[in-house]
Amino acid sequence: MLLKDEFDFIKRIKPKNIHQTSLKKGIGDDSAVFEGSSTFDELICMDTMVEGVHFTKQTMTPFMIGYKALAVNISDIAAMGGMPTYYLVSIAIPSDWTEKELNEIYAGMSLLGNDYSVDLIGGDTVSSKQGLIVTVTVCGRIEKGRSLYRDQAQPGDYVFVVGEVGASAAGLELLLKHGYNYPYTDSEKKLLQAHQLPEPQVEAGRILANANERISLNDISDGLASEANEIAEASNVELTIDYEKIPRSDYIKNYSDDQKKKWSLFGGEDYQLVGTMPKEAFTKINQTFNQKGVKLTIIGEVTTGHANVYITMNGKKERLHKQGFNHFK
Amino acid sequence: MLLKDEFDFIKRIKPKNIHQTSLKKGIGDDSAVFEGSSTFDELICMDTMVEGVHFTKQTMTPFMIGYKALAVNISDIAAMGGMPTYYLVSIAIPSDWTEKELNEIYAGMSLLGNDYSVDLIGGDTVSSKQGLIVTVTVCGRIEKGRSLYRDQAQPGDYVFVVGEVGASAAGLELLLKHGYNYPYTDSEKKLLQAHQLPEPQVEAGRILANANERISLNDISDGLASEANEIAEASNVELTIDYEKIPRSDYIKNYSDDQKKKWSLFGGEDYQLVGTMPKEAFTKINQTFNQKGVKLTIIGEVTTGHANVYITMNGKKERLHKQGFNHFK
Repeated sequence: MLLKDEFDFIKRIKPKNIHQTSLKKGIGDDSAVFEGSSTFDELICMDTMVEGVHFTKQTMTPFMIGYKALAVNISDIAAMGGMPTYYLVSIAIPSDWTEKELNEIYAGMSLLGNDYSVDLIGGDTVSSKQGLIVTVTVCGRIEKGRSLYRDQAQPGDYVFVVGEVGASAAGLELLLKHGYNYPYTDSEKKLLQAHQLPEPQVEAGRILANANERISLNDISDGLASEANEIAEASNVELTIDYEKIPRSDYIKNYSDDQKKKWSLFGGEDYQLVGTMPKEAFTKINQTFNQKGVKLTIIGEVTTGHANVYITMNGKKERLHKQGFNHFK
Repeated sequence: MLLKDEFDFIKRIKPKNIHQTSLKKGIGDDSAVFEGSSTFDELICMDTMVEGVHFTKQTMTPFMIGYKALAVNISDIAAMGGMPTYYLVSIAIPSDWTEKELNEIYAGMSLLGNDYSVDLIGGDTVSSKQGLIVTVTVCGRIEKGRSLYRDQAQPGDYVFVVGEVGASAAGLELLLKHGYNYPYTDSEKKLLQAHQLPEPQVEAGRILANANERISLNDISDGLASEANEIAEASNVELTIDYEKIPRSDYIKNYSDDQKKKWSLFGGEDYQLVGTMPKEAFTKINQTFNQKGVKLTIIGEVTTGHANVYITMNGKKERLHKQGFNHFK
């Protein structure tokens, strides 16, 4: 028994296209059954996006909100080297959102889900007092024992980045200034897209997991500085990153040095990958990346030390903290 | 990059006691890895509780909110006959909630989780604009092919209920009138407890799954009328329930007939089980229930028909709809 439920349509609107072969007939929308497998480890992650904290109606359309809520979770699976398999979604929706907008959220998830053959198998739709809240759970699988973690970095390893960083934070800055209905240039639109419709690096994660090498990996959700520090902490080593080697998006090249630094080191939400691998593994792995057309860039080295990240720039070496980076400000 | 995050403590407070043997070192708090198994099917469910919709600060303490958010999900696993294994939790917390209250929510989950050896393996803590929102994902397992669904009822089967119904809705009515700080009688306290700290019927679900019989099953979250109709619809049969046989909580016996009817048929949130089984399976299954001290009650029969539920009372037979039940009002 609910105390009250203000919006009739919320009860009618259920996640569309719940996959019926995985979701066997006759169990609740909120529950699902799928086959276990001893040749794989099971992966699971859960992430929440809140209106006013992670997005506003000025920065994201409902479609984009749905797409991105699933994308950030698929990115967590990619960061473990896994394949996403199923997802569940719970949406708490306030009174200033319409049925049409809610359907668009599900459509955004569905578009990305189809790209990765990830089936929606359950979830919940409830009303919220204020602010839309989307929570997504993504299940995934990886060949037994092959999961990639953050604690595998060792002195002598390369530090690498998959893809390019900085565009998402630049896009957010534009969106906060002008909203999404504004006559942006084509180049600016690319920045917006990086923020609104990020592409999780599943294929890159799979290449790294299949390499069967000692690799540590993290997705760049909170910014390169933060994620590199997490690897340094989990592995208890020192990472030294060469600022000039960081692969920055071409679309931010005409902005100021300060902006480029801020966006590429602390911006976050690029959902690219950062990790470490043994130097001798690089050539072969890079070949596979080249074949698949995915960009892999060496940005530094792992050295003996205690859970710190350093950055070199203009011949100077400085501590790179998770947040803040006063030297360059 | 967050647009903003109002409460510093939210970033510090993470789900406590994340299980470190299942959650291997060096992956994010929001992600987890666990071993797959070919001898089991994987179960997963996700349910959300919203302040002002499912509870208020007058009806539930933070501890109870945490306990119940996990309990309703474990109940979904019980309704499939499974064993809960792991859980993830995402909490969106507004500014009028304190760090202490947030810790109490996790403590409530932890208490119930320990009862079932269900480990917290990940989750997310974010801020909400208004109203606390708790979303829990519970994983579970069941012996391959043994999952119980709602579509297995056939004419000639018994309809049964595990446990007793009606207490939770009675408790909610008291709480909405007086809040939880009120000099309740011991008997009233039992009603409150049924609403605030419901006990999922995992053991009963396991007995039914292990019976290896054709059983349909549903947990009573939305009221007996609603859940019985779901079985009738999924199985495309008619269920006829004898109102006098419904096992009602002793603690509501002194209330009016109308209240008893309302609470036991439409109240919901008892998290007991309703299902159907072949008549010839009953004696043996009931023996196991007796041995375990769990109450199993026959309340009616399945007959040929089309997705309807009937209820007999005082010699009259009436349609029992999911909600509303005008004849008895």
